[in-house]
Amino acid sequence: MNTQPLYAQIAESIARRIRSGELAVGDQLPSERELSEELRVSRMTLRQALALLRDQGLIDGQHGRGNFVAGPRFEQPVDVLVGFTDNMIRRGVRPGARILSLQSKLADRAIARSLQVAVGEPIYCLHRLRLADDTPVALEHSYFPAQRCPNLYSFDLEKRSVYAVLAQEFGIKLGRARQSLEPTVARPDEAELLGVPEGAPLMLIERVSYDDQQRAVEYAKDLYRGDCFRFVSWSQPPSTS
Amino acid sequence: MNTQPLYAQIAESIARRIRSGELAVGDQLPSERELSEELRVSRMTLRQALALLRDQGLIDGQHGRGNFVAGPRFEQPVDVLVGFTDNMIRRGVRPGARILSLQSKLADRAIARSLQVAVGEPIYCLHRLRLADDTPVALEHSYFPAQRCPNLYSFDLEKRSVYAVLAQEFGIKLGRARQSLEPTVARPDEAELLGVPEGAPLMLIERVSYDDQQRAVEYAKDLYRGDCFRFVSWSQPPSTS
Repeated sequence: MNTQPLYAQIAESIARRIRSGELAVGDQLPSERELSEELRVSRMTLRQALALLRDQGLIDGQHGRGNFVAGPRFEQPVDVLVGFTDNMIRRGVRPGARILSLQSKLADRAIARSLQVAVGEPIYCLHRLRLADDTPVALEHSYFPAQRCPNLYSFDLEKRSVYAVLAQEFGIKLGRARQSLEPTVARPDEAELLGVPEGAPLMLIERVSYDDQQRAVEYAKDLYRGDCFRFVSWSQPPSTS
Repeated sequence: MNTQPLYAQIAESIARRIRSGELAVGDQLPSERELSEELRVSRMTLRQALALLRDQGLIDGQHGRGNFVAGPRFEQPVDVLVGFTDNMIRRGVRPGARILSLQSKLADRAIARSLQVAVGEPIYCLHRLRLADDTPVALEHSYFPAQRCPNLYSFDLEKRSVYAVLAQEFGIKLGRARQSLEPTVARPDEAELLGVPEGAPLMLIERVSYDDQQRAVEYAKDLYRGDCFRFVSWSQPPSTS
């Protein structure tokens, strides 16, 4: 005999369908009426089951829009500079990268300003698709002053974290970074690379990372899948001094 | 005689069209070819002018998608808890609020968990449209434990900051807050209230704010217009201790 309360049993039976793939990420669940008839429980019990699944992060309930199977949501801290690789490893997920391009270029105005170098200084542009357990979850555009990491292209940037390469190969100690977050939607080319529908929500993160001497060492524009990441931060009350 | 370099004069002539309203927020600028012919300048000079306008935040250049007239972009800190009202005032913008609803309810599971109260405890739900110089820019859903602010409804929450009311009327000193940021897109009802197209990018911010005794005093789900806000934060290197 199952000693779990009925709503928890119902939640588990829905969770099984999700894990089995019968219900896939992004799928809409049947309506509450349909589900309660199908599972032969009251609407109240069903709602308790759905609330539990929401608490467990298995479904996203959007008021007035029904319930959807939620993708895995990785929490990425905003107030601590943790690279993609380290963040995935901490969460028990295998990080990966596919290099889409790695070019040597001369800095244009915007990049020169962000990296605090002269216009025309040589820089590396690294464009990578980032994978979590082989699923594409983010697109990175990163720019580095070539002078600080002269032969960056000779390291395996599909296997290694760039931050680890900067630290281990070039002795760069990362300090603070300034990040800006903006919601945006996937363009057709981005949608195709990330495996999401065109117009799907993405987080655009622009970042300038500094070394421990306050010199800019990375300028990045990253696009994260909105269905896979949420960005978390503790905020402090404004100082009154 | 104008002593500004030619590209700056060209940028100024485009900026004038934006300020006059001839080009409105969200409008696409004519192509580089059209603009250079119309303004009788080389493509190189035109590109310098466009780069300047981008630097000034007057246009958004999106690679492969042309240039668009940018909306006002407010930077909202993520690492410091600054209310909407104070943030607008700091930026020289007149804050406003329209109350869409203010209800007294009993806490459901999700809200009880966020506010650390028992299921069924009385709470206030405040739903406001936030204005910046009379333009709708955000939608707020805020929940407060009624016990901490017994007659919240008797204060003018269209004119006053809720944080100010909590502090001044109920002696609540705000401490830290935990925020989570996710990109999303506007539903029809949200689009109508915010004056953006359906599917436009929005930032969903969930926040639990604590008082100086670490008691939860606010649970909020806010939607910010992506064309009006960017969220900024300094991140620190992970502590090695």
